Amino acid sequence: MIEIDELKLHLREFADARNWEKYHSPKNLVMAMSVEMAELMEHFEWMTEKQSLSLDVDTKEAVALEMADVMIYLVRMADRCGVDLDDAVQAKLTINSKKYPPVAVDQ
Amino acid sequence: MIEIDELKLHLREFADARNWEKYHSPKNLVMAMSVEMAELMEHFEWMTEKQSLSLDVDTKEAVALEMADVMIYLVRMADRCGVDLDDAVQAKLTINSKKYPPVAVDQ
Amino acid sequence: MIEIDELKLHLREFADARNWEKYHSPKNLVMAMSVEMAELMEHFEWMTEKQSLSLDVDTKEAVALEMADVMIYLVRMADRCGVDLDDAVQAKLTINSKKYPPVAVDQ
Amino acid sequence: MIEIDELKLHLREFADARNWEKYHSPKNLVMAMSVEMAELMEHFEWMTEKQSLSLDVDTKEAVALEMADVMIYLVRMADRCGVDLDDAVQAKLTINSKKYPPVAVDQ
Repeated sequence: MIEIDELKLHLREFADARNWEKYHSPKNLVMAMSVEMAELMEHFEWMTEKQSLSLDVDTKEAVALEMADVMIYLVRMADRCGVDLDDAVQAKLTINSKKYPPVAVDQ
Repeated sequence: MIEIDELKLHLREFADARNWEKYHSPKNLVMAMSVEMAELMEHFEWMTEKQSLSLDVDTKEAVALEMADVMIYLVRMADRCGVDLDDAVQAKLTINSKKYPPVAVDQ
Repeated sequence: MIEIDELKLHLREFADARNWEKYHSPKNLVMAMSVEMAELMEHFEWMTEKQSLSLDVDTKEAVALEMADVMIYLVRMADRCGVDLDDAVQAKLTINSKKYPPVAVDQ
Repeated sequence: MIEIDELKLHLREFADARNWEKYHSPKNLVMAMSVEMAELMEHFEWMTEKQSLSLDVDTKEAVALEMADVMIYLVRMADRCGVDLDDAVQAKLTINSKKYPPVAVDQ
């Protein structure tokens, strides 16, 4: 189980040990995250929706690693912005539950 | 503290209660996540890197909610792909630690 | 008919008249273009492929303006990078015609 | 000089000759264009703004080809949406000139 806080600390140490702090401005990190997102998207661009729901083993593994890249940059960027990602997700879930009421049972 | 697995289950129930399952193909979800990513990026497009390191309170709050949107779609998409995001992040961290050895202390 | 060169000069004057030159680094422009691209994508995220082939009038108009935004930033960014977009497209078309030979007639 | 209409017809024939029409829904094309955009962005993610204004020869050439990819997909997507890109750019330029009045000379 990933703990976001642990991952945050791990990534902070990882960057420090490689002298990457100077590159890790939020502006740069959002660009890097966006590039990883597109690498994830690339797997799906010519698929039908149906095909995207039943990935073959190799694609699924590649997709998983691209998702991890997005997650890693997201946690790193949150840290560099001083954002608590746990709190932000909780706040957003609350907003969403008000914004999108569930549909009635009989629909 | 967010547990990815809890969040995954919450989002699954949330989508089911709104009849969203038919929209939530991985192909559609990666598009939606990419749109949220760009909404996050929009805050930074005209900032200098330095400015991006000291966000004002309102921007920081808005940025936090956009990050949450990315996180929420990422966890939802992983679920719809049958990807274990925890495992993927662990695997990626291992790859990265081999790919990028730390620099020597005296550098 | 748009002439790329005319558009380039128009956008250069437009930016100069608004003191935007200092914001228009290629790094910033690629971010801005990417945000416009996502605004274009947003129209399509929950559509089926088939739906995307027959847009209603309002969506088509909105989509056209988002495409224009991408085009405008692309031409502006090319200018700020000293790239001749005409030459680049010609070069890429040549590459593509070699990379992807046409399929045989009987297929 | 690229004429958008000529490029549109060329790309249409190119796709037809390769049986790509079935893949070229606007939904798929906007994903593919977005991936090319990110490949363009990747060149700039760790650069300073200043560095992005003076690209070395190899980077500039690579950047030019990525811009061409974006342009090619944009023109192809416009064709598949029935959008006249020339008209859209003209309309957008008119909107922008009203939305952003030029700054006064003495500023």
